[in-house]
Amino acid sequence: MNRLFDKLKPKENRFFLLLKEMTAIIESTANVLMECVKTQNIQQVAELFGAIKEQKHHSAVTRDKIYEELNTSFITPFDREDISHLASTLDDVEDMINKCVKRITIYKPKRIPAAAIELARLVGDAAQCLTQAVEELDTFKKHPAVINGYVEKLADIERKSDETYEAFVIDLFENEKDAIELLKLKETLKELERATDAARAVGRIIRTIVVKYS
Amino acid sequence: MNRLFDKLKPKENRFFLLLKEMTAIIESTANVLMECVKTQNIQQVAELFGAIKEQKHHSAVTRDKIYEELNTSFITPFDREDISHLASTLDDVEDMINKCVKRITIYKPKRIPAAAIELARLVGDAAQCLTQAVEELDTFKKHPAVINGYVEKLADIERKSDETYEAFVIDLFENEKDAIELLKLKETLKELERATDAARAVGRIIRTIVVKYS
Amino acid sequence: MNRLFDKLKPKENRFFLLLKEMTAIIESTANVLMECVKTQNIQQVAELFGAIKEQKHHSAVTRDKIYEELNTSFITPFDREDISHLASTLDDVEDMINKCVKRITIYKPKRIPAAAIELARLVGDAAQCLTQAVEELDTFKKHPAVINGYVEKLADIERKSDETYEAFVIDLFENEKDAIELLKLKETLKELERATDAARAVGRIIRTIVVKYS
Repeated sequence: MNRLFDKLKPKENRFFLLLKEMTAIIESTANVLMECVKTQNIQQVAELFGAIKEQKHHSAVTRDKIYEELNTSFITPFDREDISHLASTLDDVEDMINKCVKRITIYKPKRIPAAAIELARLVGDAAQCLTQAVEELDTFKKHPAVINGYVEKLADIERKSDETYEAFVIDLFENEKDAIELLKLKETLKELERATDAARAVGRIIRTIVVKYS
Repeated sequence: MNRLFDKLKPKENRFFLLLKEMTAIIESTANVLMECVKTQNIQQVAELFGAIKEQKHHSAVTRDKIYEELNTSFITPFDREDISHLASTLDDVEDMINKCVKRITIYKPKRIPAAAIELARLVGDAAQCLTQAVEELDTFKKHPAVINGYVEKLADIERKSDETYEAFVIDLFENEKDAIELLKLKETLKELERATDAARAVGRIIRTIVVKYS
Repeated sequence: MNRLFDKLKPKENRFFLLLKEMTAIIESTANVLMECVKTQNIQQVAELFGAIKEQKHHSAVTRDKIYEELNTSFITPFDREDISHLASTLDDVEDMINKCVKRITIYKPKRIPAAAIELARLVGDAAQCLTQAVEELDTFKKHPAVINGYVEKLADIERKSDETYEAFVIDLFENEKDAIELLKLKETLKELERATDAARAVGRIIRTIVVKYS
């Protein structure tokens, strides 16, 4: 009887706690990322990567907890598929930051270009914005305009990230004559552009939720 | 009261108008693509890319209008998820044509190979076929056989595109000794193969709808 | 009247037969894959690729049959979307094995590295595990613990595959000075890592089903 009651009770708080945990992980990973791209010492990146791997694991575990809650709760604060999509796309952001740093440790590029720092800054901005948007989602009935502001900001960040990556690739193809170094840097920085893409996708999911529930 | 009434009214026409707008954009972008791959003048491609960027933006805006309609309509002509999937996959086709031309402008390859023209022709064929299939979807209860014909044709085009791309890659790895040029051309033409892939996926979604509603 | 009756009847057996057909195809393709990576004779790989292409086609046809059943059945053994996701992800596993062998035939690398054999063995292990997991799903109400064991094993295999691929890429970037050969081998082996990724994703879908129905 108690178990049924527990299943019927809205688990709003539980879902928000887990989603907030995911954005907190992303913010913290974005900070380590910045350290990684600022140092030119690949050995130090390899050490920092240990922390990022742990955070990535934590993110996947948290995402899986959300899935489990979805599968066992009768009532959810929003549409089941929207929450599931939110959790998996937040994990994508984390995953792409992780992949960027992993590539530095595996590829050992001769240099880390300035564009990597610029992109890491944009990833950091997106991470902060995700935290704020998810925080606001918890109480969005009060301020839909605020939440839409965050969604717009995530789109802006993604556009800037796109331009930064594009300018970097143009420069790379003009100036890097070593095909293997070109490949390394192109693939490594691409992950950061993809991270802001995923953050923008999170924004779109949040907008969908706001439209449905306002 | 009026607003509720509006929400209850089937928005069939509105959805079809928006979907047709998307296929019209793809057709027009496929025409510009053909100009881009036929000229060997990279400067001219950069100019044409301006038009493609605008069309791409228009496609994303139209897709988002469809999402918004889905979120605010009580009644939809087909399953909500099928319409949403249709809109996002049509935008994928547009996106991949855009990416191909963007890569030409960014990578500035020394030559545009003949296979690019062949692939652009197949993308153009697929674009026309998408227009016809979506047009027919509007009235499909009358001619399911006609619509299935378009779905088959999209599959045929994709197979030809696959073979064309494959033959191109075999030739490239045999004859292009400059690794950076090889990378540029391989990635650029790949987007056209992916565009016909996405067009075929649109075909599959349309077949699913026909099966459900016939 | 009969047709309606047929539509209402649970098609449990039909779905399981088709899903088992898909895992049998994957197992058989994994066997051919092993032959392909063990020989250093690219001409022989080209011959074996014919068999793989046929199996890949068979897998897609079987997946499409499952979709069709889903669209025409009123009652399904599990959630419609879970079955559809299961079928498409099983086809992804098949598709990635196919892509790996296709790349060998197209790229004609100068050598097939030992890591390819290691990865092919892991793909084979995953294939066997998929067969067992789907077999058990048919009767899972009796042994949820057994099925969870397979899901864990698929995750283990994926982790090992990840490590194997990573170690291979580190070695490749350190020792392969020919950028074109590096590109060929990196892309070819990547598909095998992705195949075990997809197999793990199948595991996750099966776990979701078990959670929902236990």
